[in-house]
Amino acid sequence: MSLVLSDTDGVVDRRQPEGLTLAGHPQHAVGIDLGGGSIKGALVAADGRIEAQDRCPTDVESGEHGVADRIAALFESLRDGHGLSNDHIAGVGIGVPGVATSEGDVIIAPNLHWRHVPFKRILEERIRLRVEIDNDASVAAIGEARLGAGRGCESLFLITLGTGIGGGLVLGGGIHHGASFAAGEIGHVCMDPDGPVCGCGKKGCLEAFTSGPAMVRYVRRRLPEAVSTSLSNTESLSPETICTAAKNGDSLACEAVARVARYLGIAIANIINVISPDVIAIGGGISAAGRVLLDPIDAAAREYTLEGMFDHTRILPAKLGNDAGVLGASRLVLK
Amino acid sequence: MSLVLSDTDGVVDRRQPEGLTLAGHPQHAVGIDLGGGSIKGALVAADGRIEAQDRCPTDVESGEHGVADRIAALFESLRDGHGLSNDHIAGVGIGVPGVATSEGDVIIAPNLHWRHVPFKRILEERIRLRVEIDNDASVAAIGEARLGAGRGCESLFLITLGTGIGGGLVLGGGIHHGASFAAGEIGHVCMDPDGPVCGCGKKGCLEAFTSGPAMVRYVRRRLPEAVSTSLSNTESLSPETICTAAKNGDSLACEAVARVARYLGIAIANIINVISPDVIAIGGGISAAGRVLLDPIDAAAREYTLEGMFDHTRILPAKLGNDAGVLGASRLVLK
Repeated sequence: MSLVLSDTDGVVDRRQPEGLTLAGHPQHAVGIDLGGGSIKGALVAADGRIEAQDRCPTDVESGEHGVADRIAALFESLRDGHGLSNDHIAGVGIGVPGVATSEGDVIIAPNLHWRHVPFKRILEERIRLRVEIDNDASVAAIGEARLGAGRGCESLFLITLGTGIGGGLVLGGGIHHGASFAAGEIGHVCMDPDGPVCGCGKKGCLEAFTSGPAMVRYVRRRLPEAVSTSLSNTESLSPETICTAAKNGDSLACEAVARVARYLGIAIANIINVISPDVIAIGGGISAAGRVLLDPIDAAAREYTLEGMFDHTRILPAKLGNDAGVLGASRLVLK
Repeated sequence: MSLVLSDTDGVVDRRQPEGLTLAGHPQHAVGIDLGGGSIKGALVAADGRIEAQDRCPTDVESGEHGVADRIAALFESLRDGHGLSNDHIAGVGIGVPGVATSEGDVIIAPNLHWRHVPFKRILEERIRLRVEIDNDASVAAIGEARLGAGRGCESLFLITLGTGIGGGLVLGGGIHHGASFAAGEIGHVCMDPDGPVCGCGKKGCLEAFTSGPAMVRYVRRRLPEAVSTSLSNTESLSPETICTAAKNGDSLACEAVARVARYLGIAIANIINVISPDVIAIGGGISAAGRVLLDPIDAAAREYTLEGMFDHTRILPAKLGNDAGVLGASRLVLK
């Protein structure tokens, strides 16, 4: 039975169990970052502290019911390991690598091989607690807006730089889904209608110029004509080695980083011109390069933003790193 | 004295004067479209009908107090001409050609030579009624969302094609202002970082490719090499003559229209990729060209929108024409 603390009958129970406020609001949530390879879970306090975390393989082949079983087990282990019951937990928030409706149906999640999976219902039946599901990039964005780079801001655009370019948009303090439930796809804005073909099949997407693989491809293509560079056409060539070389002043690496930064800066300027968010946060693996990447992004964004608009938006490194997924997911059920 | 109909004391006055609902909510508003050349005003009913309209010169040189005097006179003439009193009118909404805060301060309006003018306060002191002020493109967008192309939609992006390219964004049923109060500047998103210099000073803005003057410039530049065209390098060459020639199959005119449509379509695709609004409405003088322009815009937008997102957004001609300003302004004070 759930313990309900009531102050309406004039008798207030002052013995506040761990995890419940006086008014009976649970003080914890479980955030789940569901990826194609692994499921990460965290028990998160109302103030954003991660109290415990754990992970397990996704095992996509087991289908949505197998995945639900593993999330339920992860949830129970986090709950029981901390000596809590369902009454202490507001619910389970899940970030999925795909498109989900506000009813918790996963319309499509390619890496999970899911189409129209009513995952909220499936999981709620198992764990008997509220479940909320949203796109992983949007979830990371709400994490950054509530607990990270934009803490306390009203509007934030998160751009994640990695193998792909992801985006999530927070407006009015909540996730902006748009009519398609897929808003925020900054990686697929067109930067050059005659540009290179992107993985999505369209031409000249931001991702086709600025993803990790695009950066590596650019360096490989320019290597034969490069006069003096520490980079070489080997297996180990990666966005990380390129960024490190750029920090050390390598001219080809600097050129590659500058190219990526310029495209990102222009895309960011366009976001500011149209949406004018309080914060643009830049995260993802490549963003670890730091100022060598962020400074030229900032410069290009300023150059292409309409006068008077630039200074109203802060462009900041994302703060939550690999925890953005679980932390943001916890905010789906906990304000 | 204002007539207040009350149903809280048990006695309800059933004699409902024109312009008041039983609960005492005014049924009219005055919408003002304040331009650099003229001030247009309309008395608008709650259901969006224009009941009367009038206009007068702006006379920018008379300053904000002179403009406030003329708006007050226009307001009184509309009110009195319809036999109404202030009690029947919810307030005055104003669209200004500039940036206004939610407190009704006009931060900047270049065509009016205004900077930091507390125009809401100035006008409220004169007319003793609620005044709300917003950017003219945003006001037109809320008009289209509530009464025009997007009637009843939650989110709409209005693009106006004319001497400049304007934009206004409605999200969650209300105007999205952004941190700078200047969101929606689609005319100044960068389409080509090495493109022609725009009037704003930046390079390759959408406006620099697709405004009326840009369309005319393109035709003038291409005329010497055009083999057979009905267009000629005369004073009368205009976006209208070019669109008419395109409808008649003139090849140079078709090329000019196709070029404008392609840039617009790509910009629209990017809006869909990032914001995914219910409706994108296309208005302004050039949009009168109709399907010859809208069909290729649609095709380019589809080509550059991420798969699965395009069909959730309707791309429609704006509906309110020259009345978008006064109608939208009326919605600032009347739901």
